Amino acid sequence: MARGKFITIEGGEGVGKTTQINALAEALREKGIDVVVTREPGGTEGAEAIRQLLLGGSAGRWEERAEALLFAAARSDHVARLITPALDAGKWVISDRFLDSSRAYQGGGSGLSDDDILALHKVGSGGLLPDRTLVLKLNEEQAAERAAIRDGVHSDRIQTRDKQFHDLVHRSFHRFAEQEPKRVRLIDASGEPESITASLMVEIADLIA
Amino acid sequence: MARGKFITIEGGEGVGKTTQINALAEALREKGIDVVVTREPGGTEGAEAIRQLLLGGSAGRWEERAEALLFAAARSDHVARLITPALDAGKWVISDRFLDSSRAYQGGGSGLSDDDILALHKVGSGGLLPDRTLVLKLNEEQAAERAAIRDGVHSDRIQTRDKQFHDLVHRSFHRFAEQEPKRVRLIDASGEPESITASLMVEIADLIA
Repeated sequence: MARGKFITIEGGEGVGKTTQINALAEALREKGIDVVVTREPGGTEGAEAIRQLLLGGSAGRWEERAEALLFAAARSDHVARLITPALDAGKWVISDRFLDSSRAYQGGGSGLSDDDILALHKVGSGGLLPDRTLVLKLNEEQAAERAAIRDGVHSDRIQTRDKQFHDLVHRSFHRFAEQEPKRVRLIDASGEPESITASLMVEIADLIA
Repeated sequence: MARGKFITIEGGEGVGKTTQINALAEALREKGIDVVVTREPGGTEGAEAIRQLLLGGSAGRWEERAEALLFAAARSDHVARLITPALDAGKWVISDRFLDSSRAYQGGGSGLSDDDILALHKVGSGGLLPDRTLVLKLNEEQAAERAAIRDGVHSDRIQTRDKQFHDLVHRSFHRFAEQEPKRVRLIDASGEPESITASLMVEIADLIA
């Protein structure tokens, strides 16, 4: 049996990842492909337990190094127990976030480098890379607008913090796409949901037998 | 203020680590040294939460790669929030197990190498090494005897598994002592507790100002 394909979807808050993941899974199923949808951190019992450690408690609960190791531990469990077995069984896996989120969110700061994050991924998950990574992107005004509509709040403080963080993450994903143009594709997420899904399908068309 | 010294105590089950750690801390306090006693995995709130993940649940809960990452995450928290601040404040830290346990127990198996464990330690804890590592060792018959007395059980199956595992761990610690003779010292733990403590004090005498 042919090994399945591993697709990851990346993008900041408010960019419409969940909607697009469900639409993409549906479009692939209509082509007769068996699709597993999952997410990070989480996706397996062990990884979800680590997710509770990561997301529970106060904001300063973990230093960035411990946090990066916990994300890598959750990913290791997720890869070994869900992603690899599903791919081996011929299924396609679509994951809401994966390695590139760790690289963009934890590897771009002051304490940890991109090489550090990749070193953890090599030990934890054998360096597994997706067959394709689709990055949904909005410009900062669009993302702030969608987040504001969803959250119902919009203060200057949040806007300023969001802008700096958005810029940092935005630059990281652009760099990944430059470094690995075959794997990482940037998708404009500002149009109608149906046309965005159509764009995603174009970007993975070569993977479909 | 002079930086404190970091001492780690290693050794298998039944070797008398807890007794010797308490005696060593007491002997150092009698010399006017401020001593913090801690343990791994654990020692801080975050690391103890990870300890619960590691030690709770069924035996096969974690694959060895995820397990190694969780140990490294707990160690990162322990180093950043307890060990380094205590050393910076001039205190001595004695830890019941540290990096060398991960190297001996997780790095000696089929899936992970010693270099993998050291790579995780570099990212997680900046590669911090103890000033001295004291390995309490018994030969296998002595260790099995002490464990049997303590546990009140002694089956052939356990003895066989213990022997193989004991041999593997034993060889690892001997290798560490050969690689780093200044840091890692092997101590015969078969005598009276008082004479073992005296041996430990001899091995760290050069660290005491």
